[in-house]
Amino acid sequence: MSRFLSAAFAALDPYTPGEQPRDRRYIKLNTNESPFPPAPGVMEAVGRALVERLNLYSDPTAKLLEDALADFYGVSPSQVIAGNGSDEILAFCFQAFCDDACPPCYPDITYGFYAALSQLYHMKPRIIPLEDDFSIAPEKYFGGRHTIFLANPNAPTGICLPLSRVEDILRNNPNHIVVVDEAYVDFGGESAVPLIPKYDNLVVVMTFSKSRSLAGGRVGFALGQPALIDDLRRIKFSFNPYNVGALSQAAGAAAVRDRAYFDACRKAIAETRDWTAAALRARGFTVTDSRANFLFVRPPNLPGKAYCARLRERGVLVRHFDKPRIADWARVSVGTREQMERFLEAGEA
Amino acid sequence: MSRFLSAAFAALDPYTPGEQPRDRRYIKLNTNESPFPPAPGVMEAVGRALVERLNLYSDPTAKLLEDALADFYGVSPSQVIAGNGSDEILAFCFQAFCDDACPPCYPDITYGFYAALSQLYHMKPRIIPLEDDFSIAPEKYFGGRHTIFLANPNAPTGICLPLSRVEDILRNNPNHIVVVDEAYVDFGGESAVPLIPKYDNLVVVMTFSKSRSLAGGRVGFALGQPALIDDLRRIKFSFNPYNVGALSQAAGAAAVRDRAYFDACRKAIAETRDWTAAALRARGFTVTDSRANFLFVRPPNLPGKAYCARLRERGVLVRHFDKPRIADWARVSVGTREQMERFLEAGEA
Repeated sequence: MSRFLSAAFAALDPYTPGEQPRDRRYIKLNTNESPFPPAPGVMEAVGRALVERLNLYSDPTAKLLEDALADFYGVSPSQVIAGNGSDEILAFCFQAFCDDACPPCYPDITYGFYAALSQLYHMKPRIIPLEDDFSIAPEKYFGGRHTIFLANPNAPTGICLPLSRVEDILRNNPNHIVVVDEAYVDFGGESAVPLIPKYDNLVVVMTFSKSRSLAGGRVGFALGQPALIDDLRRIKFSFNPYNVGALSQAAGAAAVRDRAYFDACRKAIAETRDWTAAALRARGFTVTDSRANFLFVRPPNLPGKAYCARLRERGVLVRHFDKPRIADWARVSVGTREQMERFLEAGEA
Repeated sequence: MSRFLSAAFAALDPYTPGEQPRDRRYIKLNTNESPFPPAPGVMEAVGRALVERLNLYSDPTAKLLEDALADFYGVSPSQVIAGNGSDEILAFCFQAFCDDACPPCYPDITYGFYAALSQLYHMKPRIIPLEDDFSIAPEKYFGGRHTIFLANPNAPTGICLPLSRVEDILRNNPNHIVVVDEAYVDFGGESAVPLIPKYDNLVVVMTFSKSRSLAGGRVGFALGQPALIDDLRRIKFSFNPYNVGALSQAAGAAAVRDRAYFDACRKAIAETRDWTAAALRARGFTVTDSRANFLFVRPPNLPGKAYCARLRERGVLVRHFDKPRIADWARVSVGTREQMERFLEAGEA
């Protein structure tokens, strides 16, 4: 830290991404990536002809990409905004919809980035503990004075809140935004997108990093009523008008257009997830009912940290969170069936 | 604007990027892009093998790219941070180094994005008017209580401040950051990079969008002493750890490695710029002494807006800024020699 850093950031505790070690080859089950390559059309879309035109700016309106998304989700292009990953979109939501009069609110155990963004934008969040079984009690979110951030399925638990309960939260916060972060919804969750016409306080955030096999392409987006999307666009155009590069726009649009590949990938991952969960339960693990592309597991005879260290030593990376309530747990991304078999072996005593 | 947008943004006036019309083919001299494709190595680097791995996250430390930049500029990797274009890097600088106790300071006529960022981060900037000839009087920046943003060459004038005067500003603001925005330095300016070891208050910001033919690839970076770069990294990791995608990192690294192509492109542009400036002066235009990849010109018998409209009608896009002091002027990006010949023709009465 330099002597010039704004005093407001003295205690800033940045988000720690999952490690990307280079010391040896690992089976990487620590960052919830897809084990499958992008849709075949992506390789065609990001071709030499496109790269040769990179001297020109990308379309600041990301029209091709946003149109493809609007088409996929059955909304108007005025209801879509694309970003440099959903982290950027979440940051825009913090900026647009949170301030001292309306601070953010989210569970104690959820995507760690909400805490990082709260610090970054100098917000004092309201933190609502999950129930003992890691479920969300919707009524605890009713009638607050906050902008609510709700990861659904939640991370790192993978547990879903049924859509009817999401709607309860929306209905009971008519004057506050509810951001439903659906990074993992495509693996078995129930999306809030159908509620968009009914609720002017709903923003749905999604990413291409999980179900669309484009984590390295950096594409995320939000859906909502046009006035909300317009708010986010105001932030975007004041922050970085060309926030999504030409290659990412092309890759994203091509990925969205291949519905069959998308469906095949998420189906394979859901099946492998459920197979792995059953295998773990048979070995005495506690496993939450995850609808995401990861499992949240508590090993029977080993603290979470020791379990993760054992796996790492044996060439498998999973994620451990050093937080009191979940220190005994590990988050395991769902890879291919073969990767999960090797993960199971590596976990044996 | 929705009823949920934070009141602080009610008057937000986002940056307006140069238009990208699709109604017909234009000679695009309105966004300061390079007329040349990226270095040949970029096409090789962004190949099928890389696209097929986009299911994996990009390296959050952007090591390949930052190492290549460190090597090019003769600094340590701890003195480099890459971003999603230099606009993102500038935003990080605003966040890290500006607050109510230390607001931003910049000329009245300069890169329009500083004003957008000031609004976005709720800062009240100090604006210092340029001299009548559009030059900067360094002593007006001495001993302030501000973080100084200095585009050098300045935009849209193209005029350079000699390095000795930049150093005067650094020396006379020992307790405040001076961000030297060198987006256009490669076309004939004098970079402040050699001053980095001497000044712990210097941040140099650069972009791949102009001299490195990668506007659509979205790569920018900052150079400075390690403590300052570390500050910017704290912001980055709280905002968007994977801010530079895998394709952008590969494209950027390949572009940096080809010094010969870089030198050939910027030399060609500087020559075409000087040729065009001479041709315009011969036609009665007032032309500033631009060291950038654009010219700032005042037509002899026509208001700036009418001149730009005439060019547009004839298929050439240039940029007009509707600000009182420069309303009579137009900013013309330097393209190929052939494009500039057609631009000159299109400007005839």
